[in-house]
Amino acid sequence: MTKPLSFQEVVMRLDRYWADYGCLIWQPYSEKMGAGTGNPATTLRVLGPEPWNVAYVEPSYRPADGRYAENPNRMQLFTQYQVILKPDPGNPQELYLGSLEALGINMRDHDARFVEDNWESPALGSWGLGWEVWLDGQEISQYTYFQQAGGLTTDPVSVELTYGLERIVMYLQGVRAVWDVTWDGVHSYRDIYMRSEVEQCTYNFELADVDRLSQIYRLYEAEAKASMARGLVIPAYDYILRCSHTFNVLDARGAIGVTERASYFGRMRDLTRQIARLYVEQRKEMEFPFAKYQPARPADKAARPEAYIAPGQPSTFLLEIGTEELPVADLTSALEQLQALVPEVLTANRLACESVRVIGTPRRQAVLVYGLAPGQPDRTVEVQGPPAKVALDAEGNLTRAGQGFAQKQGVPVEALRVVSDGGKSYVVATRTDPGRLAGELLAEELPRLLARLRFPKTMRWNELNVTFPRPLRWLVALLGDQVVPLAYAGVSSGRTTRGLRPLGSPDIELASADGYLAAMAGHELVVDGTERRQQIGAQAEALAASAGGRITADADLMDEVTNLVERPTAVLGSFEPEYLALPHEVLITAMKKHQRYFPVVHATSGNLLPSFVAVRNGDDQSLDVVRQGYEDVLRARFADARFFYDQDTTRPLESFLPRLDTLTFQERLGSMLDKSKRLEKLAPTVGQALGLSQAEQDVTTRAAHLSKADLATQLVVELTSLQGFMGRHYARLSGEDEAVATAIFEHYLPRFAGDMLPETRPGLALGLANRLDSLVGLFAVGLAPSGSSDPYHLRRDALGIVQLLIAHNISLPLRPLLAEVAAIMPVPVDGQVLDQVTDFCGERLRGWLREKGLRYDVVDAVLAERAGNPYSAYRGAGQLAAWVVRDDWMDLLNAYGRCIRIVRDQPQQFAFQPSLDDEPATAALWDALQAARVQLTPDSDVDRLLIALWPMIPAIDRFFDDVLVMHRDPVLRENRLGLLQAIWGLSRGIVDLSRLEGF
Amino acid sequence: MTKPLSFQEVVMRLDRYWADYGCLIWQPYSEKMGAGTGNPATTLRVLGPEPWNVAYVEPSYRPADGRYAENPNRMQLFTQYQVILKPDPGNPQELYLGSLEALGINMRDHDARFVEDNWESPALGSWGLGWEVWLDGQEISQYTYFQQAGGLTTDPVSVELTYGLERIVMYLQGVRAVWDVTWDGVHSYRDIYMRSEVEQCTYNFELADVDRLSQIYRLYEAEAKASMARGLVIPAYDYILRCSHTFNVLDARGAIGVTERASYFGRMRDLTRQIARLYVEQRKEMEFPFAKYQPARPADKAARPEAYIAPGQPSTFLLEIGTEELPVADLTSALEQLQALVPEVLTANRLACESVRVIGTPRRQAVLVYGLAPGQPDRTVEVQGPPAKVALDAEGNLTRAGQGFAQKQGVPVEALRVVSDGGKSYVVATRTDPGRLAGELLAEELPRLLARLRFPKTMRWNELNVTFPRPLRWLVALLGDQVVPLAYAGVSSGRTTRGLRPLGSPDIELASADGYLAAMAGHELVVDGTERRQQIGAQAEALAASAGGRITADADLMDEVTNLVERPTAVLGSFEPEYLALPHEVLITAMKKHQRYFPVVHATSGNLLPSFVAVRNGDDQSLDVVRQGYEDVLRARFADARFFYDQDTTRPLESFLPRLDTLTFQERLGSMLDKSKRLEKLAPTVGQALGLSQAEQDVTTRAAHLSKADLATQLVVELTSLQGFMGRHYARLSGEDEAVATAIFEHYLPRFAGDMLPETRPGLALGLANRLDSLVGLFAVGLAPSGSSDPYHLRRDALGIVQLLIAHNISLPLRPLLAEVAAIMPVPVDGQVLDQVTDFCGERLRGWLREKGLRYDVVDAVLAERAGNPYSAYRGAGQLAAWVVRDDWMDLLNAYGRCIRIVRDQPQQFAFQPSLDDEPATAALWDALQAARVQLTPDSDVDRLLIALWPMIPAIDRFFDDVLVMHRDPVLRENRLGLLQAIWGLSRGIVDLSRLEGF
Repeated sequence: MTKPLSFQEVVMRLDRYWADYGCLIWQPYSEKMGAGTGNPATTLRVLGPEPWNVAYVEPSYRPADGRYAENPNRMQLFTQYQVILKPDPGNPQELYLGSLEALGINMRDHDARFVEDNWESPALGSWGLGWEVWLDGQEISQYTYFQQAGGLTTDPVSVELTYGLERIVMYLQGVRAVWDVTWDGVHSYRDIYMRSEVEQCTYNFELADVDRLSQIYRLYEAEAKASMARGLVIPAYDYILRCSHTFNVLDARGAIGVTERASYFGRMRDLTRQIARLYVEQRKEMEFPFAKYQPARPADKAARPEAYIAPGQPSTFLLEIGTEELPVADLTSALEQLQALVPEVLTANRLACESVRVIGTPRRQAVLVYGLAPGQPDRTVEVQGPPAKVALDAEGNLTRAGQGFAQKQGVPVEALRVVSDGGKSYVVATRTDPGRLAGELLAEELPRLLARLRFPKTMRWNELNVTFPRPLRWLVALLGDQVVPLAYAGVSSGRTTRGLRPLGSPDIELASADGYLAAMAGHELVVDGTERRQQIGAQAEALAASAGGRITADADLMDEVTNLVERPTAVLGSFEPEYLALPHEVLITAMKKHQRYFPVVHATSGNLLPSFVAVRNGDDQSLDVVRQGYEDVLRARFADARFFYDQDTTRPLESFLPRLDTLTFQERLGSMLDKSKRLEKLAPTVGQALGLSQAEQDVTTRAAHLSKADLATQLVVELTSLQGFMGRHYARLSGEDEAVATAIFEHYLPRFAGDMLPETRPGLALGLANRLDSLVGLFAVGLAPSGSSDPYHLRRDALGIVQLLIAHNISLPLRPLLAEVAAIMPVPVDGQVLDQVTDFCGERLRGWLREKGLRYDVVDAVLAERAGNPYSAYRGAGQLAAWVVRDDWMDLLNAYGRCIRIVRDQPQQFAFQPSLDDEPATAALWDALQAARVQLTPDSDVDRLLIALWPMIPAIDRFFDDVLVMHRDPVLRENRLGLLQAIWGLSRGIVDLSRLEGF
Repeated sequence: MTKPLSFQEVVMRLDRYWADYGCLIWQPYSEKMGAGTGNPATTLRVLGPEPWNVAYVEPSYRPADGRYAENPNRMQLFTQYQVILKPDPGNPQELYLGSLEALGINMRDHDARFVEDNWESPALGSWGLGWEVWLDGQEISQYTYFQQAGGLTTDPVSVELTYGLERIVMYLQGVRAVWDVTWDGVHSYRDIYMRSEVEQCTYNFELADVDRLSQIYRLYEAEAKASMARGLVIPAYDYILRCSHTFNVLDARGAIGVTERASYFGRMRDLTRQIARLYVEQRKEMEFPFAKYQPARPADKAARPEAYIAPGQPSTFLLEIGTEELPVADLTSALEQLQALVPEVLTANRLACESVRVIGTPRRQAVLVYGLAPGQPDRTVEVQGPPAKVALDAEGNLTRAGQGFAQKQGVPVEALRVVSDGGKSYVVATRTDPGRLAGELLAEELPRLLARLRFPKTMRWNELNVTFPRPLRWLVALLGDQVVPLAYAGVSSGRTTRGLRPLGSPDIELASADGYLAAMAGHELVVDGTERRQQIGAQAEALAASAGGRITADADLMDEVTNLVERPTAVLGSFEPEYLALPHEVLITAMKKHQRYFPVVHATSGNLLPSFVAVRNGDDQSLDVVRQGYEDVLRARFADARFFYDQDTTRPLESFLPRLDTLTFQERLGSMLDKSKRLEKLAPTVGQALGLSQAEQDVTTRAAHLSKADLATQLVVELTSLQGFMGRHYARLSGEDEAVATAIFEHYLPRFAGDMLPETRPGLALGLANRLDSLVGLFAVGLAPSGSSDPYHLRRDALGIVQLLIAHNISLPLRPLLAEVAAIMPVPVDGQVLDQVTDFCGERLRGWLREKGLRYDVVDAVLAERAGNPYSAYRGAGQLAAWVVRDDWMDLLNAYGRCIRIVRDQPQQFAFQPSLDDEPATAALWDALQAARVQLTPDSDVDRLLIALWPMIPAIDRFFDDVLVMHRDPVLRENRLGLLQAIWGLSRGIVDLSRLEGF
């Protein structure tokens, strides 16, 4: 770069670039809105079938994002450059990257990354899948394929590109604060916007009159509705935009409580859906006038398949699925599914092979089938034809029917035989079916295979409306050196794959499947994830060591980073040590969650060092530029965090409580303040059940009071995963008891699998209360998890309860506590709901026990009786597990089983009276029962039960040997059944031994 | 032009052009506004001392201008491109024309014209002077030097260029309706905007809820005030913009009555002034941060003056004042003033010359002084020195004082003389002052002369804040072949003038003053207006004749057109004959008032033909292009008019009445509906005074009811000068009586000097009532004309009353009628006001009578007694005028004068009693008086008075010969004075003969 581009020059170049591409250049809209998406040139035009390509600037107002111009790049007003491509042109990423080149950003010198970022606005009935685009770690654009808008399915799908102009220009100009950006080569962004930024913040946060703005909102809404009733789209939409901005100001002002918020959202959703429908109706009535501007469908670029020559011997088959950057989880899932499905399909098609290897990167999923047979083996088939008397005439010659059968089976008449089966005779043909060629089969089967891949969230992109996690852009299918011709989602297979993005994604011609890995390596691509992970680990450790430290183990982060790149190059970056004054958890969270950087800690002390390791997609050219970018973006993050931290620490933690009223927990369950108040009641109740001391109870109550306060602090609003951690930190700074601070932190534990657990009993009690409240409340309002949907993480909560109780060895029946929770809910909760919650926890317990390696039947047996008391179940399962592996275990199980089996289908319960039966074996069994009974209560554990039962074995055996239970005399019979029922009853409430194997 | 530019391409090219020039490229603002001026980048940034150059697009919303997309170029939403240059760069017109060249508009092939258009928004406390820029007759831009904004004087002045983008693009693309413009080469303006245009019109005109919008306005206003109280400029300004747009919607909706309008305007004015002050205070407090971006003041481009060699003999002097296009009236005035001042200055400076010629064009005012003497003649001066006794010692030698005097006067001591004057002696020096050179004197005097030029409306443009009607850009001052070095308004004189705009205003070096006219002619410039007028007349007549017609005489239009061009080329254009179906007055008005075209009428019948003659500034190159432009713009005007006409004629005239409530007559006097209601009462009263028949009274009453209805029709809203004309037309179409229709038309007559007068008495009565209402009402609220300010044209109204009464020979004392008018006014009107109105009418009558050629003394004599009855005064003056030229007139005047002179200073009135005086001459005079008296009443006319007086001459003469009036006996004396007072009383109420010459 020579002279960096000014802000306005960037806009002008983007206009020129997109105009030359064929976009209509539009203008910012005459209403305040939060993003370019709000401009009717997007909101409305993406609806319906008409093509639409547009580009424009949009100054975007987000009142709550204001920072009084004290933040380097966070403002209530920022500038978007918005592009809509409808329908998908097939190469939108390349077009986008081309626009960066037009701004002088040479991809070779940077790290441009497409990082999963899906957009969803339930309030608008809109969602889409896409990415943030990162340039050297800085988010500079967003990129979305709209799937739904205004409650309507988009068809065709629109591609939305949104440039964050300030970010890009800061980058281009090499400045660290937006205020230093030069707008025109003379004036700075500070000159133009700083004062008004401060003013708007002052207005939004301090001055806006809540009552007046609420009135204004209502008036706008009424005008919007009146306009829609008259069929006026644009006048109505103007008012909808005004509603939205007014709401945003009210929200920034802290004026929107939960009830209001839910109501506002509902109202805005209604308006948005209505306007979307109205617009589409209008366009339909106008007969979709833009339809005539439909771009000519580009001719399929894949060359006609080469003449296909089947290989004569086993060879390697390659399928490469080329996509736009898949999200990490989808990539993992795709590879797993291919690994399972490909062998299955090959087997089903009788195609032999030596091995199947599935590897991949975010842009390609490759299946390598080694030693694939050239085709199926031939197969001999016997086909039964008509009865002999039909196929043959009296002379034994073939009738017309017989001839027809031979002909239909493709065999000579001589090949028919007569076979008798159970007195009937048929003609039978023996046919040899030749095996089909592998290429032909794959051409048919692979599209079906691709269609079978399943992902939690998929999208459509072109007119075929095939779904996939991201658009599929190319297919390589090579059998040996031959292209296997197949087509999927509008893409035809060939032998051309694409190289690394930083190299411009050059076309790479593959001579043969065998040469694939070598060709990829030759183009710097590391297709195998394992290899990438190793490279990253080795590079990162070396770099961390060079900074005197090491990286902390974080498998999730490592997995993610591995699957974000095609060619990893680790970069060591640093930040100003002054930021180490912030709580380190804040810095670590910013590095990991926001930036996917590996924090570097001191090799021995484990203290955080002012360094990080990031991983670039590409080689080491211009690494300094990339590092600079990485560092700049982290600095901005840290500056943000410090700003929030400084703001938060100007006041005591407790003072944030009122603001919780503006945070929704759940519409019908109220705000976080409501929940917080429930916890103040509930936590002591739980504490009592746990037997906490009065001192502990005091801590619990205070902690409950403060437990959610940090959710209203700015830092936690920004970095939600710091909830609890910051609560503890701020509680300490506010002079709260250390025990209270600890309980605040602990009540969220465990936050994830493998996380630490609370150590203090107040933390435990509060944590249980918090989770019980969520479970009961959310189940009661019908938000129990279903399928893969668990937006409130109730599975985690239930599992948490299980883990907590087990970890603290607390035997606690859940059901009575649930009833206490139900009593303080703002919604009615019936017993059925509590049963559901109990069962739900039991299911988590089952899973947890199974993960501990316990046999399923052991788990089943215990849970059948103790699911409602996790610790007890856990303990019982452990004990039972030891019994069932005893050599003599079957003695007990058989004996006890004989008792149970004979009575378990008896609908009636009988009482045993010793006087009615004079058989000595009966009396002996009765005595044995009596002896066992005195040792047991329903709370007894499994060990005690089994120890008590063991001595009964001889008495049971003797009883069954000597006595006929099912005696014809009903009195005798029922009395004996009553005895066995009583024996069965010993295990009731403890374990159901009938669930065990061998029963 | 090859492929015409798309709409978006025009925007991009303008961005590029102005960015390259050094403008900051800004964006449309996020609020709806009526013009780019509303964007804070203009409204606020033009305030205060800081430099600011900016360019941006602004979609501009003017709800009342909507036409449901049925008009080819009138919409509620149009697009401005706005440029602000602050301070004036010195060549803004050239920069602007350069931008047109950048759009591919070659000036050589077009007629680009700067047509006076001043901008004033009293509501915003803002005004400026400038032009509309016409391209081939089409207004495509506005160009204003802001003089005041938000109630604050702009210093420095900003230049505002506002491009009407749609107009320019229509022009470039050669389309006749904005809807046919291509936006991007694919979509048309119709595609993008037509539906929303219709929707917004429907909302604004039919749906907007008045109550809700009024509430919204109040809420906005409250937020604006609260924001200002907190010192927040931008948040407040956003609300002010919203107030303004809300008001505009309410206005379009027809919801704003007069009282509301005045109130809204007052409120908006207050807000605007407050925000302007607040902004400037804020910038001051910030120490005007942009001051550092002040562009370097360009070095004075005028070369240092050549070494000046004074001519040895009389030569020609040329002063050419080069300006941006002066308004026609200012050009005329400038030339007149120069014609008067230059000789005056030459004479005052004793510079002889043969003749002075002053000629000019809109861009140059040239003074040619022929035969200017090379310098002043020498002058001998005698200077009186100290008294001889001080200057000379006893020996007669010079004292030190005497020597000092000689030295001071620069004369040798020998040259002192002693002179005695009335007994005192002084020394006297006789000094010869050598004449100064003409060039030196002119260099000193001409700047002073320029500073003496006076214009009704002037402007400032650069930091010197010199005022002139438009910026002065160059000065040529040549004496013979020498430059006379002078400077004015930051411009230094030279020998370089500039050529025609269509030729790119090339520099023209003038070798000498003598060669000026030849050089100008050689560059196609016709500097002499008389010559231009002749050329235009001849060309226009020839062209009209070629179309089978002639142009109608219109001296004003001819004068205007002459002074709009520097080189006239007449063009014959035509329009579709179908438009002739519209009332021809409409077409003619559009051609003349809007376009300055000469209508062509049939040579004999005088009927309008579908042709016009327009005058281009420039030669005949590409005349077809220019003609096409002229025709297109006229077509659009006609289409507009037809649209309005069609709309207006869908309903009866009477139905427009309610809407008059939204048109202000005057704030305190109410709406036009209020005025209309007053006329319904007043016109019959006037009719009664005029003696109208009952049938005439009925017509008058109905006509009064309808008289203002046409002001609410769309056509009259557009073409105000058609008021009355369209009223008659629409009344006829509505089935009103022809007499009613006529009266409606006639009540405005005469509309201008020389206009026709009403012929019917209802028209007369209504016309009088209309004018009397205006005069009384506006005087009563303190809006009597003062100086040159007469915004309500009250002088014209008063003169109209005079003309009407005289034309209809109606003797009518005004005072009683004024009292009737006063009685129905909504404001209190005291007798003093009525006196003022009477006097005011009298003054108009005086002027009118004088213009008729009547001697001032005759007019004075009559008006002294009959000013309140114009017809009577007129008749009396005519009669008196005949008497005063009689040879024997002085006999009467002397005789009657003797009577008057002796009594006119008597403070007391005496009654004559014949019995008290026994002088026969007294008795004879008493008899003569009695004889005259019976012939006269105060209503008698002048003829009757003088006929009655004439016979008294002998009696008067005898009385003065025989009788001593001022007798020592007070009884006798007072009795005789009483007789003479009675004689004087004969003329009272008729004429004051003492005002006559010779009295």
